[in-house]
Amino acid sequence: MQRLVVIGGDAAGMSAASTARRLLGADTLEIVVFEQGATTSYAACGIPYWVADVVTSGDALIARAPDVFRDKQQIDVRINHRVVAIDTDAKTVTATDLANATDVTLAYDELLIATGASSIVPPIDGIDLPGVYTVKTLPDGAAIRSAIDERDVKTVAVVGAGYIGVEMAEAFVLRGFDVHLIDAAPTPLVRLDPSLGALVASSMSEAGIHVLLDAPVTGFVAGDDGHVAKVVTGNGEVACDLVVLGLGVKPNSQLAVEAGIPVADNGGIITDKMQRTSVASVWAAGDCTAQMHRVSGERVAIALGTVANKQGRCAGTNLGGGTAVFPGVLGTAVTRVLDTEIGMTGLSLEQAKAAGFTAVAVNVTANSRAHYYPGGDDMTVRLVAEAGTGRLLGAEIVGGDAAAKRIDTLATAIWNDMTALELSDLDLSYAPPFSPVYDPVLQAARVMAGMIERGEGDA
Amino acid sequence: MQRLVVIGGDAAGMSAASTARRLLGADTLEIVVFEQGATTSYAACGIPYWVADVVTSGDALIARAPDVFRDKQQIDVRINHRVVAIDTDAKTVTATDLANATDVTLAYDELLIATGASSIVPPIDGIDLPGVYTVKTLPDGAAIRSAIDERDVKTVAVVGAGYIGVEMAEAFVLRGFDVHLIDAAPTPLVRLDPSLGALVASSMSEAGIHVLLDAPVTGFVAGDDGHVAKVVTGNGEVACDLVVLGLGVKPNSQLAVEAGIPVADNGGIITDKMQRTSVASVWAAGDCTAQMHRVSGERVAIALGTVANKQGRCAGTNLGGGTAVFPGVLGTAVTRVLDTEIGMTGLSLEQAKAAGFTAVAVNVTANSRAHYYPGGDDMTVRLVAEAGTGRLLGAEIVGGDAAAKRIDTLATAIWNDMTALELSDLDLSYAPPFSPVYDPVLQAARVMAGMIERGEGDA
Repeated sequence: MQRLVVIGGDAAGMSAASTARRLLGADTLEIVVFEQGATTSYAACGIPYWVADVVTSGDALIARAPDVFRDKQQIDVRINHRVVAIDTDAKTVTATDLANATDVTLAYDELLIATGASSIVPPIDGIDLPGVYTVKTLPDGAAIRSAIDERDVKTVAVVGAGYIGVEMAEAFVLRGFDVHLIDAAPTPLVRLDPSLGALVASSMSEAGIHVLLDAPVTGFVAGDDGHVAKVVTGNGEVACDLVVLGLGVKPNSQLAVEAGIPVADNGGIITDKMQRTSVASVWAAGDCTAQMHRVSGERVAIALGTVANKQGRCAGTNLGGGTAVFPGVLGTAVTRVLDTEIGMTGLSLEQAKAAGFTAVAVNVTANSRAHYYPGGDDMTVRLVAEAGTGRLLGAEIVGGDAAAKRIDTLATAIWNDMTALELSDLDLSYAPPFSPVYDPVLQAARVMAGMIERGEGDA
Repeated sequence: MQRLVVIGGDAAGMSAASTARRLLGADTLEIVVFEQGATTSYAACGIPYWVADVVTSGDALIARAPDVFRDKQQIDVRINHRVVAIDTDAKTVTATDLANATDVTLAYDELLIATGASSIVPPIDGIDLPGVYTVKTLPDGAAIRSAIDERDVKTVAVVGAGYIGVEMAEAFVLRGFDVHLIDAAPTPLVRLDPSLGALVASSMSEAGIHVLLDAPVTGFVAGDDGHVAKVVTGNGEVACDLVVLGLGVKPNSQLAVEAGIPVADNGGIITDKMQRTSVASVWAAGDCTAQMHRVSGERVAIALGTVANKQGRCAGTNLGGGTAVFPGVLGTAVTRVLDTEIGMTGLSLEQAKAAGFTAVAVNVTANSRAHYYPGGDDMTVRLVAEAGTGRLLGAEIVGGDAAAKRIDTLATAIWNDMTALELSDLDLSYAPPFSPVYDPVLQAARVMAGMIERGEGDA
């Protein structure tokens, strides 16, 4: 019998294990999963909503617990086991059982590395103080909830205005706290064009969040009790009772590097389209890998559950004897801060230019409903296209109700190499409560198509 | 100077006139529009919301009034003028000025027929009784509002459960009336598969609408005052204070027929992709035409503002000396009945089979949000695909909040001839308040892809 060993029991690892098991029974393939944490398949992206108490139980974030995998799918999940070494010659992995600090070495026929990503914690003075939290794992979420319950929290500083940062800012507003959101950049959500980032910043300010930009953090200062009490930035100081870091994540590829498995400049493990590394019998999937961006053709490191699940399924299909190909990513993402929705896909203008495109961009603001239908909200749709051809390269949306999910239409258009002109003719839906006759997406496409036709540049 | 004459001053006609004017100044092209009604460019699709009093003024439904076209664009809009004849040899049109019953004959260099569609009013006994209304024009809406204001309306019967029927049912519920929705078919919204139509029917019933199906109307009966008081159907009688008909529309192509311009079996004027009829210098656009369906390749008659606007813009571009092509339709549409959203695009299974495809279909029900995030609603996504290849042919969605607009993603996929497998890999957006990790669209695609791979039939 063959043995598949999986390192990491979250989205990519468990998708792969489940898929392989569906294709091959327990009499043909043994599957062992080493997971360093206490559970499997949890939704890290749900943690802000747990902190907000919108989701009241951390258990609710667990899509499927280890017992279910063991009982229903004969997958030997070993929690609290941290893999410390891979020997690709001997085809073994060594894991430490964290419960009793003993090591176990296990041979594999096939190995899947699905070690995920870790929060970036830069070496800033005081960053290790009590009261400074990251937001990546269920224990992180539990620690923040405990701090809220146990301390008299009134003011929170969120450092880093990426997805997690803005979502945590929302969470703390919903908790009723005074929230400071701090970022080194001049606008939040750096993947967004600054013009759209500014819209997000002003909507957050209007919602009462203190948005402190151009403010690289230089230190965290403790109060008399040794607990963090102040964030020091290049743009002033913020007194606070709690600090949450949202400074992005990096692929957990150190194990792979040590085993001689090639890793991209961004730290992601390099795989082919079937999720194979260049080392025989070693596969990788999820946040620990570098994905191929369909528009730029470059290897990116996008840590999103959507991608991790799909890559895991792809790897699992191939490991189970089927054939699957992971077709690459657009980096499509949505998020929300209170009443403001944000979506993005493909390349920003900056990214497009860096990738070698002669690119143009336009922002079009339109209402989410027919002009006479009450309750609509403005949304700004930004399109990035290749000059000359008009091929769509990227899109961003910032707006109110029902704005963000329109990014899926744009992602589908970009996926299919549509031009702005083609998009402007697309037969999209309309009814007064849902959109103007020309959906904002079509309005933006039409403006872009005109610019392309006239040979105009960035507007 | 050339003269463009446009018959019909609504979406298609005024889009064409405006577009032609943008391309050619008033010193090059004279534009005359004959409109039989009292205004231009009104949103017929807004009438249900005006009747509901969600929109409080009929004027709000007028996107642009005749004066604006005259003053800002030098378009000679002649309202209350009904064109009664086209002479394609002499290149003239004759219109009756309804204000004083005089005729005017005007020569054209180019003629655009944009006469729209009319409500179907079948020859049913009593259908002309006072209190029986259609819903197509602003005067229709005004008449219904007046009836509500002037009579003691408690119970309303809506005959026909198409878009307009279900939207009018919603409108009368919002007005606080007792609403009966009557249709000859076994499920509402016949474009929907009966399995999804049944979901709509039960949601309407739960919302308190009396849904009477399999009930062909055989007569309308007056009360003592001569006003309609009862609807007689093949499935029982309904006492009511007011009747609204939503029995569909038919292209207004009689003028074209009389002028010898070819019309399709469905009554729509036949045009090429530039919106030219086969008669020299005669163009047509909007609800009066037959459109090419991109999936079936057949000529359909889809009366939707989205299509009318795009066809008008296309015709106007070509009339203005530019070059544009109308790429055809998918019949994408959305509507809503209270809390239930409905979307559809492409072909139903029945339509696909009628068009000669060997087609399979599947319904997948999934939540609109991450499983742990509160407030989500189930939605059912139905996909129709070609057996063997898995090419997507059509899609339908019925669900709660944020369900319907997902049809745009599916329309974009179908437009691009994607297969179910390709769709299942698409990089769509995810965040807990917006979708599960696998959006319902992707879940449905994945199930369909599996069926195609296994060679399974209708599920």
